[in-house]
Amino acid sequence: MDIAVIGATGVVGKQCLELLDSGALAGLGRVVPVASAGSAGRDLAAEYGLSLKVDEVVALDDFDPSGLDLAIFSAGAPISRELGPVVAAAGALVVDNSSAFRMDDDIPLVVPQVNPQTMATRPARGIASVPNCSTIQLVRALHPLRALGELERLIVATYQAASGGGLRGLDELAATSRAILDRAQSTGPSAGASGRFGQPLAFSLVPEIGLRDDDGISHEEHKLRREPRKILGLPGLRVAATAVRVPVVNGHAEAVHVTFDRPVDARDALDVLRAAPGLRIYGADDGYPMPRQVCASPESSALVHVGRVRADPDDPCSLLLWVVADNLVVGAALTALEIARLAAESSWA
Amino acid sequence: MDIAVIGATGVVGKQCLELLDSGALAGLGRVVPVASAGSAGRDLAAEYGLSLKVDEVVALDDFDPSGLDLAIFSAGAPISRELGPVVAAAGALVVDNSSAFRMDDDIPLVVPQVNPQTMATRPARGIASVPNCSTIQLVRALHPLRALGELERLIVATYQAASGGGLRGLDELAATSRAILDRAQSTGPSAGASGRFGQPLAFSLVPEIGLRDDDGISHEEHKLRREPRKILGLPGLRVAATAVRVPVVNGHAEAVHVTFDRPVDARDALDVLRAAPGLRIYGADDGYPMPRQVCASPESSALVHVGRVRADPDDPCSLLLWVVADNLVVGAALTALEIARLAAESSWA
Repeated sequence: MDIAVIGATGVVGKQCLELLDSGALAGLGRVVPVASAGSAGRDLAAEYGLSLKVDEVVALDDFDPSGLDLAIFSAGAPISRELGPVVAAAGALVVDNSSAFRMDDDIPLVVPQVNPQTMATRPARGIASVPNCSTIQLVRALHPLRALGELERLIVATYQAASGGGLRGLDELAATSRAILDRAQSTGPSAGASGRFGQPLAFSLVPEIGLRDDDGISHEEHKLRREPRKILGLPGLRVAATAVRVPVVNGHAEAVHVTFDRPVDARDALDVLRAAPGLRIYGADDGYPMPRQVCASPESSALVHVGRVRADPDDPCSLLLWVVADNLVVGAALTALEIARLAAESSWA
Repeated sequence: MDIAVIGATGVVGKQCLELLDSGALAGLGRVVPVASAGSAGRDLAAEYGLSLKVDEVVALDDFDPSGLDLAIFSAGAPISRELGPVVAAAGALVVDNSSAFRMDDDIPLVVPQVNPQTMATRPARGIASVPNCSTIQLVRALHPLRALGELERLIVATYQAASGGGLRGLDELAATSRAILDRAQSTGPSAGASGRFGQPLAFSLVPEIGLRDDDGISHEEHKLRREPRKILGLPGLRVAATAVRVPVVNGHAEAVHVTFDRPVDARDALDVLRAAPGLRIYGADDGYPMPRQVCASPESSALVHVGRVRADPDDPCSLLLWVVADNLVVGAALTALEIARLAAESSWA
């Protein structure tokens, strides 16, 4: 299988190459990293310390998709919108990490642990979409619970890491945090005004991710409503979300309140979650998941971590959960590769 | 008015003295700071840079309450439980920042902007309780909205700052943050295992504040349910909370979903909130409140900041809000002094 990784120098592209290096896709042939012209010629295998054989970085304008089987896009919606259909027309399956096609009716929005049936036939336009990072961990935690009753309503507050803002977001959090720590002891440099997150994030919170519409709902909050509805096949699911950027390096967390169509028991929920693949469950004696620990090893980064599972004391039909996952791995690169694996193992491939 | 500040060397005690220095209480006489024996003799006016005349720090064991009019306790529940009734019996009004007496039926739990009537007569036991920091900002944001309809249900996720863990919490966040930043560039010191917050907080999240009970609900989450019910006089108010410590220096934030007994309009909510005293409201063109900015000046620290007021797209009876306040000022010291002011201005004083 010959593949291209578009956006190979970004945080998600890097994770893709590292996961490929650790054997995430069988039968790998050529690996073509694609990035902006300024990165052309870079040797990413050496830079990232991979044993995987990887071509030199190809500039976007020089990228020739002919002969490729798969292209994973992690370079933002404008590039996906422009280049995705071209690459799909050349015969490669496009797996797109951007928001470009997610809500299109004829594009599957795929979480392999939740709706693998959407890949039972080759996507009509040759493109499959990876959901938003905060959606993936949410639906992976909730889907197994449907064994207890159908989901009626979600109220979600997110705690989203700086890595969601890419390398620039990570650098900015480190630099501004250091400036504040230094200033506390002397008259050091200012922490800067605004940057990747719209407002300074270090030791603070930015309660807006993406632009707000006229109703005051942010783009990220719309994604948290529309995408789970499509993936879960529940167009009437009620969702109210608050999306907040927090000064965490990597790993998104979500405080989830979920209401079912019948009374549910927290112990039953734990049993059902423990039986589901790809989750790590924290019971009464297991503490709780935290972003730094969740993202500390490849094994842990590949799972969705669910803790603090408890009943709503005032509603027998509702539960509360705390869901944490590596937003670059589970939330993007690994899910993209799992979609590619679903395709490779399908009868139509 | 002669007063004592018990716990004067802690983060809340310091705020009390600074607020007194800026004239928060009229007719001030003696100010007696009380702390542990190790701090006896310290000159806090000099240390904190106050022009207020303050006695040398008195050790707890040597503290004589006779002749005092007011004692503000910010030294933890065990000390309040032991010393509060003694000081009240000596004739001083005790205003207690700890959790020791909050849920006692015969102790008023007071937020002057919400239930000032609880101080219309002298408290039977001579003690008035200040609610938990996360409760105060929540009920101050919600109470004015009762003009639109009665509150039926709250679903709250908190983002609570390190200053809630006192000086030790603040020092720990700074030291462990620096260690992580340094380690990113070299093999510097480890960030340490666990400390003031039970787990390492720097660049991460700790989703448990206080111990959990057998139902998996934390102590902080119980406070967020019990205290608003008592303050608002709504014993049947449904509340489900998730309390999370975040790597913010100072300033608690809350993502609030509130359901009313009738349909409500987000614009009406903004109008009602704008007319309420003690709040700063952020409309569509005003951005949103963030902890660092909220705590950046005494004027701002004295207000409850409410932004991101919006309708629940799937429920005409629900609104979402983002509430931020200085947890040491609004959440403790200033509210304690406002309770003292209520008492001083009452007919029974």
